[in-house]
Amino acid sequence: MMRHRRLDLRHGRVDLSHGAGGRASAHLVDDIFLPAFDNPALARGDDQGAFDPPPGRLVLSTDSYVVSPLFFPGGDIGSLAVHGTINDIAMSGARPLHLAAAYIIEEGFPFADLARIAHSMGQAAKDAAVTIITGDTKVVERGKGDGLFITTTGVGVLAPGLDLSASHARPGDAVILSGNIGDHGIAIMSTRQNLGFATDLKSDSAALHTLVATMVRTAGPSLHVMRDPTRGGLASSLNEIAQTSKVGFRLDEKAIRVRPEVAAACELLGLDPLYVANEGKLVAIVAPEAADALISAMKAHPLGREANRIGFVTEDTEHFVQVATSFGGNRMVDWLAGEQLPRIC
Amino acid sequence: MMRHRRLDLRHGRVDLSHGAGGRASAHLVDDIFLPAFDNPALARGDDQGAFDPPPGRLVLSTDSYVVSPLFFPGGDIGSLAVHGTINDIAMSGARPLHLAAAYIIEEGFPFADLARIAHSMGQAAKDAAVTIITGDTKVVERGKGDGLFITTTGVGVLAPGLDLSASHARPGDAVILSGNIGDHGIAIMSTRQNLGFATDLKSDSAALHTLVATMVRTAGPSLHVMRDPTRGGLASSLNEIAQTSKVGFRLDEKAIRVRPEVAAACELLGLDPLYVANEGKLVAIVAPEAADALISAMKAHPLGREANRIGFVTEDTEHFVQVATSFGGNRMVDWLAGEQLPRIC
Repeated sequence: MMRHRRLDLRHGRVDLSHGAGGRASAHLVDDIFLPAFDNPALARGDDQGAFDPPPGRLVLSTDSYVVSPLFFPGGDIGSLAVHGTINDIAMSGARPLHLAAAYIIEEGFPFADLARIAHSMGQAAKDAAVTIITGDTKVVERGKGDGLFITTTGVGVLAPGLDLSASHARPGDAVILSGNIGDHGIAIMSTRQNLGFATDLKSDSAALHTLVATMVRTAGPSLHVMRDPTRGGLASSLNEIAQTSKVGFRLDEKAIRVRPEVAAACELLGLDPLYVANEGKLVAIVAPEAADALISAMKAHPLGREANRIGFVTEDTEHFVQVATSFGGNRMVDWLAGEQLPRIC
Repeated sequence: MMRHRRLDLRHGRVDLSHGAGGRASAHLVDDIFLPAFDNPALARGDDQGAFDPPPGRLVLSTDSYVVSPLFFPGGDIGSLAVHGTINDIAMSGARPLHLAAAYIIEEGFPFADLARIAHSMGQAAKDAAVTIITGDTKVVERGKGDGLFITTTGVGVLAPGLDLSASHARPGDAVILSGNIGDHGIAIMSTRQNLGFATDLKSDSAALHTLVATMVRTAGPSLHVMRDPTRGGLASSLNEIAQTSKVGFRLDEKAIRVRPEVAAACELLGLDPLYVANEGKLVAIVAPEAADALISAMKAHPLGREANRIGFVTEDTEHFVQVATSFGGNRMVDWLAGEQLPRIC
């Protein structure tokens, strides 16, 4: 019943036995996941993690991560899977508490990459003060997956009195964006397309919950909607909110910040930065009287230094998102049609 | 901003746009998932589901489901993904409350199959009185997945005073099995291998939480460990408990029930039923004085009618699982070595 013959983390690879629930599965957990996610709940070796929730309404959010490539400038699938789900929790105004992590691994995947990703995931969780209290590992045959998919699910707790929702935008509300857009999507594209000029560009992947905590303290129930514009970018998030809240948006293009490298890459690739994914930015729809104080508070946080008012909510039975362009014109920004950047998150 | 052009659920197929976060993604959610999972939390259209937890310690559990084939006698990946995660929650003694569901879909997957699976998932959740309050959908390119993978994550609440864990088995404890073993694994194998004689065999896939509630009411803190012997079967579950609790097991082979069709299929395929997966059975390790009353209570529940004492926990520094055979001999049952039945769950 020897359980501790160590895996060859340098040269070994995942095979089907590591997903079969026997000794090899236990080795994988013991040698890769337990050290990386280090916490007492996980170390109990049970099929579930237990925790005592603080008082309050809880939120649950899940996301599968299928990003390709698995390693990219500014992060990897592990850190992304932590940041992304923390952000989905945080967009309700909640404080993230715990995560669950489920791995679907393709046969032949190197232990070294798995350990590197698990380590990055554990580090991202530690930096964000959340714990990965439970997990699962499955292995699929070669050719039936694509290296690694990770699904993370988070649980968080809401402060009393908060009720943010995509349906709560009201005409006259201010639209505030936490920073420049498009970095994540273009960083991923730069690795796929070898964009030489974009080599300094990194994903903005970051956990936004401490920025959100600052915003909640400052604006409280004046916060009506928050979204992290990931897949489909800012344009898709705002269209979704417009549809759900039955309102329109009017944005000022000059106020929406885009790095010059991102703008250049978008021009080359024929992309509109408004549709490009972000992983460390948020858009907040707030009561107009709360906007100035909120922006000041955001600017005092490292992840909100470039916070900016980019527009306002309109009464619009067509639910249009309109952008006043730098040239004095006006363009409609529709939902993303079709797929623009597959496997971005 | 038309959002409600209906999908062609009969002939249509998933393409990459359905995972891109734009209008096509919204269509997929509106036309397939919302009707199937029907509940107000999900209908809000937010990236997270909120709930007010009942008082008590909570548990979180996650599992990815990669079963192949997706449809099998007695269930499909959708019902399995609900039952399996409910069972992981229930094995802690907790009452399951809510689920999150994350779909990784391969490009080209038929809408009709997706709708059928989502419906089956919604029905399984409804039957078990849990709600799927949040979800996610990703699409990967053709050849980078295998039709559909589903990850479900559940949250549940523990009754006060319970602390079940794989580390809590004590020498002298009784080992109780809720029914016959091997049905799920052999049902899956029968579809892959065209085992004619096993055509009547169905997966035992079922949600065990109401059986567990009965057991908790009857035995309370006398329940030391519960496990649902899925991948790796009963042998792997008991080896894992032996290792974690630093004990051994002595089982009576005659007391472990195996259907004749399952026994026949195992003989043909060279499998030991002790290693074959179950999806609707549990093994409980309980204080010996509580065993008789517990078995009576289990037998009164539809999912525990065949409950049986199959052995006891021993003091054993080697952590061996030993089985007294029908022939009066004694065999050691080691951890599952290698993979026996890939993609069983």
